Amino acid sequence: MESFAKLLLTRQSCRAYDPDRPVEEEKIAACLQAARLSPSACNSLPWHITLAEGDAAKQVGNCLRGMGMNKFTVDCPVFAVVTEDDYNATAAAGSKLKDQDYRSVDIGIMAAQFTLQATELGLGSCILGWFDEKQLQALLGTRRRVRLVIALGYPVEGDPLRPKKRKPVEELVSRLR
Amino acid sequence: MESFAKLLLTRQSCRAYDPDRPVEEEKIAACLQAARLSPSACNSLPWHITLAEGDAAKQVGNCLRGMGMNKFTVDCPVFAVVTEDDYNATAAAGSKLKDQDYRSVDIGIMAAQFTLQATELGLGSCILGWFDEKQLQALLGTRRRVRLVIALGYPVEGDPLRPKKRKPVEELVSRLR
Repeated sequence: MESFAKLLLTRQSCRAYDPDRPVEEEKIAACLQAARLSPSACNSLPWHITLAEGDAAKQVGNCLRGMGMNKFTVDCPVFAVVTEDDYNATAAAGSKLKDQDYRSVDIGIMAAQFTLQATELGLGSCILGWFDEKQLQALLGTRRRVRLVIALGYPVEGDPLRPKKRKPVEELVSRLR
Repeated sequence: MESFAKLLLTRQSCRAYDPDRPVEEEKIAACLQAARLSPSACNSLPWHITLAEGDAAKQVGNCLRGMGMNKFTVDCPVFAVVTEDDYNATAAAGSKLKDQDYRSVDIGIMAAQFTLQATELGLGSCILGWFDEKQLQALLGTRRRVRLVIALGYPVEGDPLRPKKRKPVEELVSRLR
């Protein structure tokens, strides 16, 4: 990789996947390893990924397209469904004492590491927060909260790199004097 | 950077900062830019960073060391205090409809990008979820929720790179058949 700053500019939410190009198992494994290496409160890693490929990916995709959203997911070959897991005892105690939800933060860190690793490997990805949670829970056979679904696959040929539109740094940052 | 996988193995929670080595402004700016480039639900970036250096960092540090925790922060030259900001209208609507808290996830993504950029620049960092929120709110003059504090600085000379201990991937991942 040229630089991390360049990687950040290359990662974008991919909404046009090549349906005929599967993702190599070793690339999926690298994304999962990046997820696993995430820091988390008290090293709790309070999440679980259910990986869906092939027919299973079709079934997950069907849970993502309510109200005309996420139509592009019909072509996506791989999904990582992220459910919330229990804290370990120290993280649970800290969360209660401090009235903080560390799990969602930890899941965000993990999703960043997963998708940036995907980017380095030439894959497209998209972090999705819009899905039918009850349908996904039924599909997975779990009652755990589904927090994110990460779409993964090769972008279609010629999918352009879009410039990043973001709030200016002056709006996002101030200094304590 | 050699590879993103290598960067992930290099980033670690730094708990030994060199108190006599300030962080260059351009390196701080690069970390802030990495934060700004984060993906977030509906591109809402629902957070604000209050940067504290010098005396301000000392004051922030005083809010981090309750119950014998985070003693190392006494030597840390820079803190980024992360407060939760409002969603934009679309993210707020999605959050309500889907009963999901996207803000904490977005803050996690941001913290990952900030700290990985710091790592590439040779800086140490630590994502802290343990702090006296009321004291920090008073210091910042805000009623917004404080979600994280990111410690930033140069590690002391010879601070060793620790091997990563994590749950095995088999425990973190399963496959939908």
